[in-house]
Amino acid sequence: MTEPTEVVLGPTRYGKAEVRLVHVARSGAEHTIRDLNVSVALCGDQADTHLSGDNTKVLTTDAQKNAVYALAKRHGVDAIEDFAQLLARHFLTTCPYISHARVAVDEYAWDRIPGAQSRHSFVRSGREVRTALVHADAAGDSSVVSGLKDLVVLNSTGSEFHGFFHDEFTTLAETGDRILATAVDARWRHLAGAGERDWDKSYAQARASLLTAFADTHSLSLQQTLYAMARRLVGRDEQIAEVRLALPNRHHFAVDLAPFGLTNENEVFYAADRPYGLIEGTVARAGAPPDPAAWD
Amino acid sequence: MTEPTEVVLGPTRYGKAEVRLVHVARSGAEHTIRDLNVSVALCGDQADTHLSGDNTKVLTTDAQKNAVYALAKRHGVDAIEDFAQLLARHFLTTCPYISHARVAVDEYAWDRIPGAQSRHSFVRSGREVRTALVHADAAGDSSVVSGLKDLVVLNSTGSEFHGFFHDEFTTLAETGDRILATAVDARWRHLAGAGERDWDKSYAQARASLLTAFADTHSLSLQQTLYAMARRLVGRDEQIAEVRLALPNRHHFAVDLAPFGLTNENEVFYAADRPYGLIEGTVARAGAPPDPAAWD
Amino acid sequence: MTEPTEVVLGPTRYGKAEVRLVHVARSGAEHTIRDLNVSVALCGDQADTHLSGDNTKVLTTDAQKNAVYALAKRHGVDAIEDFAQLLARHFLTTCPYISHARVAVDEYAWDRIPGAQSRHSFVRSGREVRTALVHADAAGDSSVVSGLKDLVVLNSTGSEFHGFFHDEFTTLAETGDRILATAVDARWRHLAGAGERDWDKSYAQARASLLTAFADTHSLSLQQTLYAMARRLVGRDEQIAEVRLALPNRHHFAVDLAPFGLTNENEVFYAADRPYGLIEGTVARAGAPPDPAAWD
Amino acid sequence: MTEPTEVVLGPTRYGKAEVRLVHVARSGAEHTIRDLNVSVALCGDQADTHLSGDNTKVLTTDAQKNAVYALAKRHGVDAIEDFAQLLARHFLTTCPYISHARVAVDEYAWDRIPGAQSRHSFVRSGREVRTALVHADAAGDSSVVSGLKDLVVLNSTGSEFHGFFHDEFTTLAETGDRILATAVDARWRHLAGAGERDWDKSYAQARASLLTAFADTHSLSLQQTLYAMARRLVGRDEQIAEVRLALPNRHHFAVDLAPFGLTNENEVFYAADRPYGLIEGTVARAGAPPDPAAWD
Repeated sequence: MTEPTEVVLGPTRYGKAEVRLVHVARSGAEHTIRDLNVSVALCGDQADTHLSGDNTKVLTTDAQKNAVYALAKRHGVDAIEDFAQLLARHFLTTCPYISHARVAVDEYAWDRIPGAQSRHSFVRSGREVRTALVHADAAGDSSVVSGLKDLVVLNSTGSEFHGFFHDEFTTLAETGDRILATAVDARWRHLAGAGERDWDKSYAQARASLLTAFADTHSLSLQQTLYAMARRLVGRDEQIAEVRLALPNRHHFAVDLAPFGLTNENEVFYAADRPYGLIEGTVARAGAPPDPAAWD
Repeated sequence: MTEPTEVVLGPTRYGKAEVRLVHVARSGAEHTIRDLNVSVALCGDQADTHLSGDNTKVLTTDAQKNAVYALAKRHGVDAIEDFAQLLARHFLTTCPYISHARVAVDEYAWDRIPGAQSRHSFVRSGREVRTALVHADAAGDSSVVSGLKDLVVLNSTGSEFHGFFHDEFTTLAETGDRILATAVDARWRHLAGAGERDWDKSYAQARASLLTAFADTHSLSLQQTLYAMARRLVGRDEQIAEVRLALPNRHHFAVDLAPFGLTNENEVFYAADRPYGLIEGTVARAGAPPDPAAWD
Repeated sequence: MTEPTEVVLGPTRYGKAEVRLVHVARSGAEHTIRDLNVSVALCGDQADTHLSGDNTKVLTTDAQKNAVYALAKRHGVDAIEDFAQLLARHFLTTCPYISHARVAVDEYAWDRIPGAQSRHSFVRSGREVRTALVHADAAGDSSVVSGLKDLVVLNSTGSEFHGFFHDEFTTLAETGDRILATAVDARWRHLAGAGERDWDKSYAQARASLLTAFADTHSLSLQQTLYAMARRLVGRDEQIAEVRLALPNRHHFAVDLAPFGLTNENEVFYAADRPYGLIEGTVARAGAPPDPAAWD
Repeated sequence: MTEPTEVVLGPTRYGKAEVRLVHVARSGAEHTIRDLNVSVALCGDQADTHLSGDNTKVLTTDAQKNAVYALAKRHGVDAIEDFAQLLARHFLTTCPYISHARVAVDEYAWDRIPGAQSRHSFVRSGREVRTALVHADAAGDSSVVSGLKDLVVLNSTGSEFHGFFHDEFTTLAETGDRILATAVDARWRHLAGAGERDWDKSYAQARASLLTAFADTHSLSLQQTLYAMARRLVGRDEQIAEVRLALPNRHHFAVDLAPFGLTNENEVFYAADRPYGLIEGTVARAGAPPDPAAWD
């Protein structure tokens, strides 16, 4: 079979995804754990392996996985932003055919078990996952995006929705009181040069900003709540350049109980799965230079 | 086409599964929410609909769903064990062709958002799901099983495994120090007549028993830990007749770093997905009468 | 802390779950693959490990996993019912402390890639999973249950639902034409002594019976369809003693387009996720002896 | 609380996600179904709702959902690329505050039930999902990207991997014969002006190109296979400008049976879940103008 069409190999990347790492730091009987899911993606001169299967310039994804574990041993595991930067810089130095490294890390939170006598016993906490995304290249440029996902929040009142545009398919009733619920997916980009921050402290503050802005905003639309959350996050942390939020509107419909002679005063709701509204938005610090490649 | 074989219709049940109910109780500005997933299954004289499609004796699953919402409005939603019993008794009285009702409820926990000024703002907490399973029949018999699932716990030390049987396929190395991690799936059956308990208090105590027994047991096998957890749960609550535990052994393998000249002193682990050990066991109060049908 | 309550260790089992095995049989350039997920659960005298952590009588779940792979090499992998029986018998002989073995196998189907020149190239086919569940004990008793799950089927007409019971919460409209869709979960128990069947042929016939009975039954209720499917399956295979079906009613609601001046003549449907009706039923061959333990 | 920082609202979009639509076309007793999951995202002048909760310029996501169903009724549902374009153009005309529409559609395939007498009976087929992504703006520009995901394929031989780069963490053994398996995630962009294609035919051909190129390529790396698949797809369809492939390397590890005195001649494999290699690449037709926005 012949395929005479002239085609061009474009951008590529390769790596090991979802390396599950649990790191235990021991300070006597007091243990601390970090529970991570690490994904590496590398770019460089990879035409040979694509075009002819010549792997001379390929760092195996197996070696990438080994590096995750070995560097965790050598340097320990601090904040995921630090660990991701450490890994990204490592890959840029270990193989001459790598010109760019992308490291994404998910972290699962654990609490100490309450009431336990031991200092080595933990219970998975919360539903959200903390995230970090680091890009670095051989020229020395780098970026750090922190985030969280699946932080599920709900206001049982304090949310209205009315005054919207009407087209031929608009039948939605206006409401002055509804449940507003969402699973927050938030990512925030740090200013260049923020590489040495106290990331854990910054994360805790960002999470608190998102939560309290969600709770404290009397909402006329989920769009308004999104902006309030983003604004608070950027406003409270001078090192944050930009935030991106994706908020699914987890619809809770008040059940019509009139057929049964009952009045539902916003007490009984059906929590729907699909479809759902999805509101996405970006808020940036005025004057902060953009960096679109940081988010990919 | 003829199918002359003589066949017999055996046990059947029918119902509405996964009715998602969020109930908001308002005490002025102070709201409380219950977030449930309710599944109903009814038994009775259903031969007609199966054999000929005559639905005279069928209570529609749509009506069952409506009942969940209407009863939530009429009576509010207290502990899930109470709500499940309320529903089960309702179905036994609403339609003469129902002789047995099974109601299963999952509950998702929410906390108030810390630092929020409002009293109507919540964040999903924890990973575990609280469960209740109620059976009731027209003769007045009933059973209540409470439980939880996906309570993920980990001891980073205090776990050994050695002295096991060796067959021709046994190659596992013995260990005096390993990570022990599991996702607790626990269900406990209350003594008959326990129908009026303070279920929320009982649940909180059971959860604490499971957690602290897991943490405080120096483990020579996950089987031993299972028994310790079950024993503590039964031992601390006189109204519990029996507990069933299923504990997947979420293997965390110490990564071999020797090829890189590094010694892994139980610091760096690979968290495996599959396969996993699965330990299941039952522990009963001595003398408590069994009730195998309660668990189905 | 003391827990003086007298408690009793009840039934236990332990094993390795979800051992993922892909077996390649080579007949020259012609390859055949079997893609399995195997779960082993063993029972026996396990009080020591539960009560004191003495593992003398424990066959490690790691060795169980090794056995799955080693026996696949030694004997090849034929029908999953055969392989499950082979494994169950192995465990009863390899360790004197095992009195009962349960082996469950899921199989994922693959087709040859159409149009490929090679005879070693495959594509995952279908959505359903074929299942087998074998029990065997030291006394020589055994049982075989075959099945499938997630076989998703839909009739776009030929389904009615009316004439049902009305209670206070019944508001469902009667219908003479609706979509009927379900994800078939079926299991069938073979007569004792059926251990040497042509399982692949039996499976293909059972699958076809379920599909054609679903298609050819003009349905007045999903219950009626369930019975017709079960009856055909038992009627066509003399070695089948009993079948259990669980059929979720995957509701497809005709969308109300009247607000837009459109008439929906059963053309446009919303496929709902939750809640769903769930119809479960058992049909047995007249006179076939029951075996309730075979299904657990 | 004051947040005096000056922030800027950046790009936003909003819409209804995962609108589940099943469309039945009736030609007498012969029915045809299309089973879709439709997600709409709209851009425009949305600052008011974000900044002040003024919803005057918001087309509700509920109306967007209604439009999906109403247009399915009015125009029927043809190929998903057509339906997505129809929807996108609709949104650009129905509300003056919408300047850009993005419509993504997933389609689930069904086959007729083999052996059924009826022409309205279907079974879900295959595992892959067909996809379409359409962008359109008020200026008349548009793009169409077709694709598929979760097409799971496997070669049981004909795959080698050796000659790779060695760094300090490289321990992988070279191999001349391994299983190569992946879940194909492919998207291909059509040339501008391709808006009136026979999309179903184009899709069938693209799927066949991917499958046969996977099967027929003797692979020295998954990278090489990726390029071969992309090249064949572009080479066989003159209307395709560019293809993007993401191929997870679903590792199948030959199990070491030497401890049991057995030689594993590439017959017995462990199918691993995580981590996995992930190879991503783009191949374009020489000279075709790029359109990066088409893929988002």
